[in-house]
Amino acid sequence: MSKSTTKRMKRRDFMKAGAVAGGGAAVAAASSFPAPAVAQERVDIAIVSSWPRDFPGLGTGAQRFAQSVADASDGKFQITYFAAGERVGAFDVFDEVASGNSQGYHAADYYATGKHPGFAYYSAVPFGMTPAEINAWLYFGGGQELWDELSGEFGLKAMACGNSGGQWGGWFNKEINAASDLQGLKMRIPGLGGNLLSKLGASPVSLPGGQIYENLVSGAIDATEWVGPWNDEAMKFYEAARYYYYPGVHEPGTVLSFGINASLWGRFSRSDRALFEACARAENNTMLAEFNAKNGAALTRLIEDQGVELREFSDAIYDAFATAADEVFEETRQHSPLANRIHESFLASRNEVSRYIELNDVNYIQKRNARIRR
Amino acid sequence: MSKSTTKRMKRRDFMKAGAVAGGGAAVAAASSFPAPAVAQERVDIAIVSSWPRDFPGLGTGAQRFAQSVADASDGKFQITYFAAGERVGAFDVFDEVASGNSQGYHAADYYATGKHPGFAYYSAVPFGMTPAEINAWLYFGGGQELWDELSGEFGLKAMACGNSGGQWGGWFNKEINAASDLQGLKMRIPGLGGNLLSKLGASPVSLPGGQIYENLVSGAIDATEWVGPWNDEAMKFYEAARYYYYPGVHEPGTVLSFGINASLWGRFSRSDRALFEACARAENNTMLAEFNAKNGAALTRLIEDQGVELREFSDAIYDAFATAADEVFEETRQHSPLANRIHESFLASRNEVSRYIELNDVNYIQKRNARIRR
Repeated sequence: MSKSTTKRMKRRDFMKAGAVAGGGAAVAAASSFPAPAVAQERVDIAIVSSWPRDFPGLGTGAQRFAQSVADASDGKFQITYFAAGERVGAFDVFDEVASGNSQGYHAADYYATGKHPGFAYYSAVPFGMTPAEINAWLYFGGGQELWDELSGEFGLKAMACGNSGGQWGGWFNKEINAASDLQGLKMRIPGLGGNLLSKLGASPVSLPGGQIYENLVSGAIDATEWVGPWNDEAMKFYEAARYYYYPGVHEPGTVLSFGINASLWGRFSRSDRALFEACARAENNTMLAEFNAKNGAALTRLIEDQGVELREFSDAIYDAFATAADEVFEETRQHSPLANRIHESFLASRNEVSRYIELNDVNYIQKRNARIRR
Repeated sequence: MSKSTTKRMKRRDFMKAGAVAGGGAAVAAASSFPAPAVAQERVDIAIVSSWPRDFPGLGTGAQRFAQSVADASDGKFQITYFAAGERVGAFDVFDEVASGNSQGYHAADYYATGKHPGFAYYSAVPFGMTPAEINAWLYFGGGQELWDELSGEFGLKAMACGNSGGQWGGWFNKEINAASDLQGLKMRIPGLGGNLLSKLGASPVSLPGGQIYENLVSGAIDATEWVGPWNDEAMKFYEAARYYYYPGVHEPGTVLSFGINASLWGRFSRSDRALFEACARAENNTMLAEFNAKNGAALTRLIEDQGVELREFSDAIYDAFATAADEVFEETRQHSPLANRIHESFLASRNEVSRYIELNDVNYIQKRNARIRR
């Protein structure tokens, strides 16, 4: 998959060609067939992603999405997929697609918070929404419209295309019994979660996935978060840290996104848009199902085979998280009117939907689980 | 949308037509155009559904799915959608599609439990899975493969195409303080939930949606369940019953399904299948988001505008539900080896995934909500 795709769009009009042929000597032969089928143009789409090739969950989900567009379009969209580093670096995908050099990206939009802090809300923020909650906001709570406004400022159109579920609190070499235990801790944690921890006196460090393990083993960092049991098990963090904390406050349901060049999107037909949106919403659903299916089994293996000790963040620590999160959000809101509007819209949906989810879903799960475990 | 669709499939082979034209006198004219676009056949698909036209959530979701297939296929699939009663009755859709008279249905598969009790697991069963959990089973836990085996016995291929979320316990004229309060109660509740209540001495009644309100007002029934706040508000049950109970035990995340004639599915290309599967998974995601977005606001209106009183089923009542559910499941398992295999597969996924969901998602929601409500 290293070949470079062409960047032009081939728009071929069969109906025009058919009209010419039909006007010539072949009329009799052509008219012995029923009304002509509709022609289908071919469109080359290069998708650059932020994930290593075949990276479980995120990478395989992005590849599954790319394949589904190719398949469902019956080859109209000729997709070439580039994993991180195969065409551009993991964090360069936004500029690559905005420039039109590639057509689409699969990434997490919080990698673009350097452009605008509003992008964080379209992946995950501390005290944010779970997957079911954030879909309610995106599809029916005004979230997508604000995303369009935000992405449009940077030449992009983006949509949800996967969810990792709620990410875990992280791997620690010592127990975190109070917020004061976080002071001075060097922890690998990116984004607003890192900002939150720095308010509590920790030193957040940004490291690509491939360098975390060695830094944890060497003691260069004291702690790390990554994703959840399924992905974390593959990273073998249990060899270097004993305590695995839950529930994570920093990313309660991380949205992965498919973004496309805004100018290309503007030229798409209603059908083209429907196809990409269907495949993206399908992957949004499928990726979460895979994380939920595989995290449970991985967690059991971590505990039973690797001797990992689970620890729950205490209520007092969550109180400290909440205070720090308010400070982080205040900085975001001050950035710009659009950032503030996104924040307000996000919180309005969160507060309404989460109340319902707790009353109905959470209550049911606890009552059921208490009985099926007996 | 009252016209009858043709039942034949139009398979037109443009490449064949093109070869004939190309072999005649029009060669010169045709070759002045680039390589021919790929031909696209047209396929007529009649979808019959179990929902009234424009019925919020279920009906509008089915219609949105039908439209998405038409749109995303660029008109290759010519969809004609029939609401319940427009072509066949709500519960006759399975036979209609198996016969090939219509091509697809949108329904809840537990309407087909008269054919086989295993179908219940593909909509909802008491003490069953929430939407996130059941998707993990269907897509990554072996659920779809068993569904294919079950539906295949009846000439059908089915897939998840929507979810209503966890349904509410129902509307009651008196408080249910103990399981004994259910004895002698005439309640509208279909399916395995009805079987469960009959084990506890209630008299389950089956009534179509349009007749529930009048029966509740007249006192012909003492209680009813329906869906959740958004749908129940539209039915005005609050005018006839004061107490609204949660969490429902009978349908914790009801899957709606798209089914297609198995023989037609067998003739579909890889592309055709990918298109239908993408649109179905997308609707599975979208419908749940709509219920979650709208249930919260509806619940607030029911409480604040209509004076509805919420009541929670007690732990003692849930204990009684659990005992009754075991009896109901035992009857299902005795039906056939396939029913037993479906039950075992369902429970294995439920037990593994639900443990993870409680530890991570439930724990997070409670810790977060306790702080955002302050």
